Amino acid sequence: MTTGSAARESESGRQRTIWMKPGSHDTVQIIDQRFLPHEFVTEDLRTVDDVVGAIRDMHVRGAPLIGAAAGYGVWLAARKATTAADVDRAITEAADRLKGARPTAINLAWAVDRVVGAAKGQVSAGDKVSACLEEANRIVEEEVGRCRQIGEHGLPLIERIAESKDSPVNILTHCNAGWLACVEHGTATAPIYLAHDRGIAVHVWVDETRPRNQGAGLTAWELGRHRVPHTVITDNAGGHLMQQGLVDMVIVGSDRTTSNGDVVNKIGTYLKALAAKDNGIPFYVALPSSSIDWNAKSGADVPIEERDPGEVHSVRGFADGAFESVRVTPDNSPAANHGFDVTPARLVTGLITERGILDASTDGLSAISKGGHGED
Amino acid sequence: MTTGSAARESESGRQRTIWMKPGSHDTVQIIDQRFLPHEFVTEDLRTVDDVVGAIRDMHVRGAPLIGAAAGYGVWLAARKATTAADVDRAITEAADRLKGARPTAINLAWAVDRVVGAAKGQVSAGDKVSACLEEANRIVEEEVGRCRQIGEHGLPLIERIAESKDSPVNILTHCNAGWLACVEHGTATAPIYLAHDRGIAVHVWVDETRPRNQGAGLTAWELGRHRVPHTVITDNAGGHLMQQGLVDMVIVGSDRTTSNGDVVNKIGTYLKALAAKDNGIPFYVALPSSSIDWNAKSGADVPIEERDPGEVHSVRGFADGAFESVRVTPDNSPAANHGFDVTPARLVTGLITERGILDASTDGLSAISKGGHGED
Repeated sequence: MTTGSAARESESGRQRTIWMKPGSHDTVQIIDQRFLPHEFVTEDLRTVDDVVGAIRDMHVRGAPLIGAAAGYGVWLAARKATTAADVDRAITEAADRLKGARPTAINLAWAVDRVVGAAKGQVSAGDKVSACLEEANRIVEEEVGRCRQIGEHGLPLIERIAESKDSPVNILTHCNAGWLACVEHGTATAPIYLAHDRGIAVHVWVDETRPRNQGAGLTAWELGRHRVPHTVITDNAGGHLMQQGLVDMVIVGSDRTTSNGDVVNKIGTYLKALAAKDNGIPFYVALPSSSIDWNAKSGADVPIEERDPGEVHSVRGFADGAFESVRVTPDNSPAANHGFDVTPARLVTGLITERGILDASTDGLSAISKGGHGED
Repeated sequence: MTTGSAARESESGRQRTIWMKPGSHDTVQIIDQRFLPHEFVTEDLRTVDDVVGAIRDMHVRGAPLIGAAAGYGVWLAARKATTAADVDRAITEAADRLKGARPTAINLAWAVDRVVGAAKGQVSAGDKVSACLEEANRIVEEEVGRCRQIGEHGLPLIERIAESKDSPVNILTHCNAGWLACVEHGTATAPIYLAHDRGIAVHVWVDETRPRNQGAGLTAWELGRHRVPHTVITDNAGGHLMQQGLVDMVIVGSDRTTSNGDVVNKIGTYLKALAAKDNGIPFYVALPSSSIDWNAKSGADVPIEERDPGEVHSVRGFADGAFESVRVTPDNSPAANHGFDVTPARLVTGLITERGILDASTDGLSAISKGGHGED
């Protein structure tokens, strides 16, 4: 049993988002993120049903984490079967159900296929089950490794600013591209955590990120847990802070980066990139190279999801010890809810990937599309 | 009794924010805006105490409306006195209390001083009281007239766009610079209402305007009441809509415009101005010339108010038939709440004032600082 590779905490004592339940051989645990930031709730996942529900109902979110959870989902299905044929049937069935839990998450299908493929290569039921577990663990560790590398590549950017001033390095971020969306480290947060751990004074401005408030609810919570100084602001405030010299750099994540370096990310990212440009502040995007869409020539090729307008009409928060939604718009006013926007490559100072820092351009990205390692 | 000049509705049937109670000679009525957009509540103001409370506790808000209410407050104090000396004492006392109700609102002191000054010019108690009422009414009508003129000057801008397309003119606005902040028409909304009344198809994108959500709560409500098509969006969304060609122009209000044309307005205005510039979309600011700060050379001279961080931590809305606040940040995370930002004149296409459309520049503003009438 290789439970060591799915531990609750990393060697450095960091909390992870998914891990093997201590002492168990049949249970995966996750943080049920629906209760953050007000309650820290963990959940046992024992069956593929549990995993499908956790993904579909957003107990876990963030493409990398969804992929990791789905990988374990295949294993949990496999381990209930007794014969090799049973295992194959079970994982095929599980794969379909897992992929359908959040159909637009590319990572999910990719992770499921990897684990299914690993099982297919084995003959006996036992070997198939072991292969599923090992592959699921491997996906997790690879994910953690990529984020760690993003941190290592981004760290010098923060170090250079720290050397030039006596006060904390002020970093603005949008939405949640933290470890809660991944397994550990996060993407945009990876260089920040690493700098903090190395004793560099940092302070993070956290955009609340309406409509779902992932900044106020998740990024602020995880930074607080790691004792990284931070301040929550409204999505309206970043431009003013930049004008006032209160932001040294911006680091955001990316849902999809196109082959010319355009960045598709949470709605509002573009506005912060414009303000950074207007104030001469470096604007970095942290991303695993797996989220680069080589087939999209530019952001214009990426369809922007329109989500439930109810997320705009109402705000979910905590009151009197319970979660509640309050309506902020008139009953008869319509609302629109575009989920993402495109930050043109010309506004991006650099892409921090696990393979180095790249120019946000076709040329810059070609360094890794050709199997190179970026310029670092 | 000149109650005709403080009617609940204008000749065109428009609801006003403040009016003489129909059939009464001693009572002013207001919309208690704290209950919007979920309840339409009016309130009787019979004493200066009532007015001080309504201003201090934000039953009324918006500089022009606060000034109008305060003017009536002086009259309500005066009319309880019997001798001329009593009236003078009463209005002096009332003036101090009214000015203290929201100390930073410049308009408030100006309106109070005007009404007090009108009373001082009269000899008998009766004439003093009448002078107070007439001056208070005059302030209201002047205010309405200025907004009407802003509408007239702004209308051709919308007409020109309407002529060039077959679909509604899409106008984005931020915060509430509508009639709820004034008495009638509003500033940013004045050209919009006028265009709508003249049969021009318009559609307004309403920024929700965190942290106090004056867009979602007030602008959407008043547009809905006048049946102007509109859609509420998060503060993050405007840039994307502009990139998609879904915004034809931006019109916002201004809390203070400096002598070089910089615009101090609700936090987040600057971000929308940047996006408008980046997408070649005209960005207009509507304001009465009284809000121009001739002593401030640029926006850098204007101190930006930091407000209660509680407004960021929590969101107020409606749930189960009552107003409630829900917390959106972790208990231990700090928040910052800057109230305004500065939009540099270079990003402003023009200033729509009651005296015409001016260039946002020292030269442009000099047209009216010298007593001219702008270029229209």
